Amino acid sequence: MLGSKGKVGATMVAAVGAAEDLTFTTGVDAGDDINRLVETSTEVVIDFTHPDVVMDNLKFVIDNGVHAVVGTTGFTDERLRRVRQWVDAKPGVGVLIAPNFAIGAVLSMHFARQAARFFESVEVIELHHPQKADAPSGTAARTARLIAEARKGMPPNPDATTTALDGARGADVDGIPVHSVRLAGLVAHQEVLFGTQGETLTIRHDSIDRTSFVPGVLLAVRQIARRPGLTVGLEPLLDLR
Amino acid sequence: MLGSKGKVGATMVAAVGAAEDLTFTTGVDAGDDINRLVETSTEVVIDFTHPDVVMDNLKFVIDNGVHAVVGTTGFTDERLRRVRQWVDAKPGVGVLIAPNFAIGAVLSMHFARQAARFFESVEVIELHHPQKADAPSGTAARTARLIAEARKGMPPNPDATTTALDGARGADVDGIPVHSVRLAGLVAHQEVLFGTQGETLTIRHDSIDRTSFVPGVLLAVRQIARRPGLTVGLEPLLDLR
Amino acid sequence: MLGSKGKVGATMVAAVGAAEDLTFTTGVDAGDDINRLVETSTEVVIDFTHPDVVMDNLKFVIDNGVHAVVGTTGFTDERLRRVRQWVDAKPGVGVLIAPNFAIGAVLSMHFARQAARFFESVEVIELHHPQKADAPSGTAARTARLIAEARKGMPPNPDATTTALDGARGADVDGIPVHSVRLAGLVAHQEVLFGTQGETLTIRHDSIDRTSFVPGVLLAVRQIARRPGLTVGLEPLLDLR
Amino acid sequence: MLGSKGKVGATMVAAVGAAEDLTFTTGVDAGDDINRLVETSTEVVIDFTHPDVVMDNLKFVIDNGVHAVVGTTGFTDERLRRVRQWVDAKPGVGVLIAPNFAIGAVLSMHFARQAARFFESVEVIELHHPQKADAPSGTAARTARLIAEARKGMPPNPDATTTALDGARGADVDGIPVHSVRLAGLVAHQEVLFGTQGETLTIRHDSIDRTSFVPGVLLAVRQIARRPGLTVGLEPLLDLR
Repeated sequence: MLGSKGKVGATMVAAVGAAEDLTFTTGVDAGDDINRLVETSTEVVIDFTHPDVVMDNLKFVIDNGVHAVVGTTGFTDERLRRVRQWVDAKPGVGVLIAPNFAIGAVLSMHFARQAARFFESVEVIELHHPQKADAPSGTAARTARLIAEARKGMPPNPDATTTALDGARGADVDGIPVHSVRLAGLVAHQEVLFGTQGETLTIRHDSIDRTSFVPGVLLAVRQIARRPGLTVGLEPLLDLR
Repeated sequence: MLGSKGKVGATMVAAVGAAEDLTFTTGVDAGDDINRLVETSTEVVIDFTHPDVVMDNLKFVIDNGVHAVVGTTGFTDERLRRVRQWVDAKPGVGVLIAPNFAIGAVLSMHFARQAARFFESVEVIELHHPQKADAPSGTAARTARLIAEARKGMPPNPDATTTALDGARGADVDGIPVHSVRLAGLVAHQEVLFGTQGETLTIRHDSIDRTSFVPGVLLAVRQIARRPGLTVGLEPLLDLR
Repeated sequence: MLGSKGKVGATMVAAVGAAEDLTFTTGVDAGDDINRLVETSTEVVIDFTHPDVVMDNLKFVIDNGVHAVVGTTGFTDERLRRVRQWVDAKPGVGVLIAPNFAIGAVLSMHFARQAARFFESVEVIELHHPQKADAPSGTAARTARLIAEARKGMPPNPDATTTALDGARGADVDGIPVHSVRLAGLVAHQEVLFGTQGETLTIRHDSIDRTSFVPGVLLAVRQIARRPGLTVGLEPLLDLR
Repeated sequence: MLGSKGKVGATMVAAVGAAEDLTFTTGVDAGDDINRLVETSTEVVIDFTHPDVVMDNLKFVIDNGVHAVVGTTGFTDERLRRVRQWVDAKPGVGVLIAPNFAIGAVLSMHFARQAARFFESVEVIELHHPQKADAPSGTAARTARLIAEARKGMPPNPDATTTALDGARGADVDGIPVHSVRLAGLVAHQEVLFGTQGETLTIRHDSIDRTSFVPGVLLAVRQIARRPGLTVGLEPLLDLR
């Protein structure tokens, strides 16, 4: 585990320790010698560190033939290009870089994209705790953009509204209305609502604690050895047909 | 039944006919002689007519000692004052005038008002078919105002939003955020969300056809004889403790 | 339209008439001459008739090179085998036979099957009007069986229940708990709930009138010419990736 | 605070400390001298201790003219009778004993009881984490019994079910169907569904952490001095009209 003393790192160390089919080898944090990963014959590294150090970490683990599952943020196209070069030079090594490991969130977006073309109307409601600074949430904005892209060429949502209070119809993200609720007692929730004649379809994701990334990271750790090369996003590992 | 050939009137004629404890006497519509109500010894009149004729109708039925359940719109304070004078002059006659007979909608507002003081946060989401012209709906705006009044003196909803797209946080109705969804496949729906530390309470009302006024009108017909004087709104008849 | 005077048939005749990119040619019902389909150069036939006549109908339209979209029930494996022989003998002709044209229901099942492997727990709640005779609904039972099949080899839902009232934990359909709610004011609704550490995913389908088959039939009519051979179920036409 | 070192006690000590209008005086736990409550001029005691010691605690605080808010369990009718005698002998002292301080749960039951008479159908769905031992939950069973009592004399839920899998229609609690979902990723949730012609009303309560009792206890602490005598349950303090 790289970043083993951080909040996410500590949670993952415990989760790997509790998984019967996985063995925890060693944790490395700022100040520790990264060579410990090699000395302990670690097969898969989990990296939840910092944009400042993650590229050096990745260069080291790829060069040493260790697979990597990376949740650290800040990957630009340029950074992804460099990582792809490194893994191409080390056939057999698998690296997964993903912005979101919550399986429910990843599936929600996948389903929303699939359903987008088959309904006249679609709107997104995201609901979060009131300490959140941005509205809509990054996930909601991304979901709306994925939907909008899938609907290219389709007529817009029907909407006969002629008299509206400011804000009533939500924010417009690429033509998709997005509504942001901020409520004490909530954590992170999202609903995508699709509707057509006589029927509606709702995809709802509720995340109620900060450990919902755990099953997704474990799934990636178990599969990355069979996925040589660079994979971006958890979705390809889910083998959705 | 006054207005017996209108859509609502015809539905109510059928509903009264189907109720075992009620007897349908006669229907009166434009052009018919209103004296038929008296000749048939009608005990309770249901009036779903038009603001232009409803005052004459009411004067007639009250003067003849007939109770009335009225769903016709357009009652100003001045009109209510006049009706009150008429019933005061006819002790024992009961008149109910209500803007909304859907019991679920009436209870939703009642519960929302009761819950308002006990939660840090409250928001309203209303969801309707895309042919609707106004946003938010009249019911949602009225619900928000009732909540705002019940919360007088309380701190506003906590909300740390610093970066928001226009409209993301909904419309502001007396300090309560109201979000309006317009979606094919929906009819008329509303959620009031309350939240405080560790818990949320949601009151949801779904109305999926235009006959949801029937049970409320029947309830009023059955009770109005025991409610002399003028009653405004269905809520007092529900005897909520 | 074959079966043009039935409830579904009449609805589809109107829907085709209202679609700008489609032209209604002719309706045929019991007693009418089926040759009218050929005389009017009909390209696609919609068949909502009866198991007793549908095979003769299909033989006729396939032999005449007309595509068919079929919602009639009663297709056994043996019947499907015969239809397949007929279309194989007429290259270029496309026939779609589907038990359910509500796109939301078809997508719900597809998503439920895709999500099934990624969550520890899954349960199904279906909610219908109280006139329904069977519990659970056919769709819910089919959804549960699809999920159970996708979860083969996985551990069962965790469940520490030791004291339960009869029926509290629902019906067991291949190991998946299914709960049936019967409530006045509802039509046909279903929720599939998935859960794992810290997060849940819910797929909800609401069908509130009997015309929710229309968009699915229209979609099939538009695509069937590009789908030679026999297709069973609407799902393949949705091109879900 | 009596029981100040327990989980609930520690949470309440922190909550009182954080409340601007309240002053924390002292904590007392097993082995501590209960006289500290009097020496510190404590006005209101919070008791989350144990059935074995709570009666002695209450005798002491009432005799010393201190108000009490009690969440300890195990109060039989006989115990309540004795506490009532003690407070009657000390005019001005207020004691609240409540089994549930989650305001959302208390309001849910109140609203369910109020709505019960106005709908043809009602069912309860409760959803909990899979470590729960009993089904249905105590709160769901209590909610169903309150609803059943309010519906005395009304016809039962309409239900045309003739073919059902065992358990599909839920558990029967005094004639009200109750469905229990057990799902990883959930904490404690409950929905009461009411339905009549064309409309449904849903009251949903979500409790996602173990601190949802805090606002209810604080509300009781602030009001108990104005409520002399014994009060059972949080509901009377909410002044619901």
